[in-house]
Amino acid sequence: MDFQSWMTAVQQRTERALENLLPAADIAPSRLHQAMRYATLGGGKRIRPLLCHAAGDLAGADPSRLDIAGCAVELIHAYSLVHDDLPCMDNDVLRRGKPTCHVEFDEATAMLVGDALQSQAFLLLSDHVLADDPRRQSEMVRLLALAAGSRGMAGGQMIDIEGTGRQLARAELEFMHVHKTGALIRAAILLGAQCGSPMPDDEMARLDHFAKRVGLLFQVVDDILDADASTATLGKTAGKDAAQGKTTYASVMGLTEARELADTLRSEARQAIEAFGERGRRLHELAHFIVTRKF
Amino acid sequence: MDFQSWMTAVQQRTERALENLLPAADIAPSRLHQAMRYATLGGGKRIRPLLCHAAGDLAGADPSRLDIAGCAVELIHAYSLVHDDLPCMDNDVLRRGKPTCHVEFDEATAMLVGDALQSQAFLLLSDHVLADDPRRQSEMVRLLALAAGSRGMAGGQMIDIEGTGRQLARAELEFMHVHKTGALIRAAILLGAQCGSPMPDDEMARLDHFAKRVGLLFQVVDDILDADASTATLGKTAGKDAAQGKTTYASVMGLTEARELADTLRSEARQAIEAFGERGRRLHELAHFIVTRKF
Repeated sequence: MDFQSWMTAVQQRTERALENLLPAADIAPSRLHQAMRYATLGGGKRIRPLLCHAAGDLAGADPSRLDIAGCAVELIHAYSLVHDDLPCMDNDVLRRGKPTCHVEFDEATAMLVGDALQSQAFLLLSDHVLADDPRRQSEMVRLLALAAGSRGMAGGQMIDIEGTGRQLARAELEFMHVHKTGALIRAAILLGAQCGSPMPDDEMARLDHFAKRVGLLFQVVDDILDADASTATLGKTAGKDAAQGKTTYASVMGLTEARELADTLRSEARQAIEAFGERGRRLHELAHFIVTRKF
Repeated sequence: MDFQSWMTAVQQRTERALENLLPAADIAPSRLHQAMRYATLGGGKRIRPLLCHAAGDLAGADPSRLDIAGCAVELIHAYSLVHDDLPCMDNDVLRRGKPTCHVEFDEATAMLVGDALQSQAFLLLSDHVLADDPRRQSEMVRLLALAAGSRGMAGGQMIDIEGTGRQLARAELEFMHVHKTGALIRAAILLGAQCGSPMPDDEMARLDHFAKRVGLLFQVVDDILDADASTATLGKTAGKDAAQGKTTYASVMGLTEARELADTLRSEARQAIEAFGERGRRLHELAHFIVTRKF
């Protein structure tokens, strides 16, 4: 199967899985469930489920298990967007080409949507059998909780807020992104691997190195796109980093150097998984997709 | 050991456990970790850890495991208070006799505190061995995720918001509280039991019945206290339910009948665990404490 077909197939099965795994809109409290579905379904590139499936392929995991693990990570991502868009955070009105959750519903509902989506992610990891050894399933909960929490994504958002309005040094910027975006992307890859056959330590270390490079790569490309693309193409407000006084890779090193950094990170990511050969094909292709994406 | 000494001992060991299990205030991002500690430490009756320990006693659980499970439930409770106090929710400025988290820090920080405390709760349940059979540990994650999410606590808060400003029927009020407060109290008890020796189905059913009665009892007493007590005694704003146009047991049936309902629920709770005899002593005592508490 070529990459484009594989990607479309994973995106479609992820969408179906999310539809089935989220509480139906007619279950009480129905407004909350409607809003959770609004915030999660029908949009998004599903980069994290794609990475989860690609890493799971490498580890010989059952795709139906990867659907669950990928959706758990995607729910954490979806919750973070809902909270990030709130007036007390980025105060954004447009997301994936639609009004943000608090605009379409209201602030209190949007806060509860984020809270409930986070619980739902951990429900997925405990309500389905994802590994033959139940200890590996606890390890998945641990990886996701660490990636989402104060030493992961939520911590990264705090660093982001604290840095707004002043120019960060490149090392500070990297520290922020390793937490804010990198931790969850890494978790997507490691959870995918955990769904498959146990891998030797050196293979896990290689995969982990790849995951860290790709996490940073994703953010560098995001910054370049934010500086470069239009709101219509992105489906979210473009140029908002600069408008909000946020440091980006584009602002700290210029667009040209940021593009060079993206190429370097992609090479490092490629090298990290070279030894997997054909098994790492989907991961290679995804890294290429991330660096060449236009939205 | 008499009840008062037991209660003080569990509260103290819970406080120590929370101190150790929360990231230190000097770990980056330090403002977030300070705020997480501010919102969690040094206050609260620790009702949920007490119930967790009492149920664990009954199941012969190791107290150090109960510390972890009790703290996980308490972190979910603490996060819910932080989010509930935000301007877009109850907009409250006083909690446990101190300024609420968003008043002491700021709104964005308070939102991230809540988000990160939830992740931290699931981290506790996966980062420590709490049961000899790892499948029981997955079951604990499942119970807590269900209790916290859209069909538990977060759902109850949604029902609460939707009902504000109109008088609810008693059945609606009960439906709200079963979710908003009851689900997490029930989870505290069931998690405590899961830390111990496996119990026969009929014993678990009895304990679960007790848990549901106590969950409702706690809320009925809370409503009575809110209508009756002063802000100084409660350590949070008193009379705010009425001021916010919220239906309470006191408003729906009057204080006298609400007190009778509390007595009835307490009797039902007592009957549910009568067959446990002396093993259920701490649970009995806690139900008594809940119904006679003054704050």
